[in-house]
Amino acid sequence: MFEVQYNEEMEAEIKRLEAENRKAQGEVTMKKSVGAKTLLFPTPTLMVGTYDQTGKPNLMNAAWGGICCSQPPCVAVSLRKATYSHAAIVERKAFTVGMAGESRIMEADYMGIVSGRDVDKFAGAGLTPVKSDLVDAPYAEEFPVVLECRLLHIVEIGLHTQFIGEIVDVKADADVLGDDGLPEIMKIKPLIYDTAHKGYHGVGPLLGKAFSIGKGLQK
Amino acid sequence: MFEVQYNEEMEAEIKRLEAENRKAQGEVTMKKSVGAKTLLFPTPTLMVGTYDQTGKPNLMNAAWGGICCSQPPCVAVSLRKATYSHAAIVERKAFTVGMAGESRIMEADYMGIVSGRDVDKFAGAGLTPVKSDLVDAPYAEEFPVVLECRLLHIVEIGLHTQFIGEIVDVKADADVLGDDGLPEIMKIKPLIYDTAHKGYHGVGPLLGKAFSIGKGLQK
Repeated sequence: MFEVQYNEEMEAEIKRLEAENRKAQGEVTMKKSVGAKTLLFPTPTLMVGTYDQTGKPNLMNAAWGGICCSQPPCVAVSLRKATYSHAAIVERKAFTVGMAGESRIMEADYMGIVSGRDVDKFAGAGLTPVKSDLVDAPYAEEFPVVLECRLLHIVEIGLHTQFIGEIVDVKADADVLGDDGLPEIMKIKPLIYDTAHKGYHGVGPLLGKAFSIGKGLQK
Repeated sequence: MFEVQYNEEMEAEIKRLEAENRKAQGEVTMKKSVGAKTLLFPTPTLMVGTYDQTGKPNLMNAAWGGICCSQPPCVAVSLRKATYSHAAIVERKAFTVGMAGESRIMEADYMGIVSGRDVDKFAGAGLTPVKSDLVDAPYAEEFPVVLECRLLHIVEIGLHTQFIGEIVDVKADADVLGDDGLPEIMKIKPLIYDTAHKGYHGVGPLLGKAFSIGKGLQK
């Protein structure tokens, strides 16, 4: 009886050591599976500007997107086929991507609540539509930075269609530009979208310079 | 002489009023052209994990990416052909996307400074490689959230190739999960990349709930 128990203890210890070894060798993880979900942090709050068939300007709120190429400079935004903006981009082959500042959080969220099918969203939010001088799409004068985009690729993925636009120019308010002529993130105060808990966050302070703070690890 | 000056003043006033009208009609903008640049705010700090031909795990730092589809859940990352990770994704048809927390800012930046061609970046940064149990790619145990991705599409854009991966699972540390089982952004403390001035920022506090704060503008 004693010997049996001893063997069981030995076996348990062997299994524990084996598990430790596997972990040390990087074969197992302490992480939990959360499921196949779109849990990326951060995602942006993009204000996609388009004209509909009648020329009415429209804005939608999109968190699925990001820069996808440096040369030519391109941005990608993904929209469901069901959205009013989807058909507009296909037809006009152009869109803008504005970034709302923190002070326009209500306007930004409103663009994700109502549809351009039902209302004039610019008028509803009290925003000023400006026609891009370069592409066939409008943007809101009240958002501090906007990318003017010419449709380059359409990628059908699934529920969402990805539109890749070449950034033909960036327009920015003078008061968000730094001495080097580039927009400063802490002056823009762009909204960050939390896709897990559906909230908007601000940008925190600078934590470190890129291509610099990691040099401490270089041998 | 007096009459001439009077006409000039009238003309200037007429021009000023015309400009105001054009602005009111959304035909002009007060914004400045910044040029065709990849100025999106925010961009993420993505840790792309791959195995090379010999099975050596590698990580790279990518700011060009984002979620691109909800169903199937997909994430896009764009890499230059010259990167060591590019060939690895093409060959293994898999990659992971980890998110470093603020405490790992040095390790994250290091991944953007050195190449897996020259060094073992996991070893160099003191990170633990874990083999995904679902796809043929590794991730760092020290990053609180990671997406495990199966390559779905390759989109050649220009300098960058866009890899679209289906997210087959998300793994997260137990201590970043909320009561609902989903990761909490303020526990992850993901790094935001400022593409204009090449710095890492933290995420600020919650400013408002989505699909909610904009309801005040609904008629």
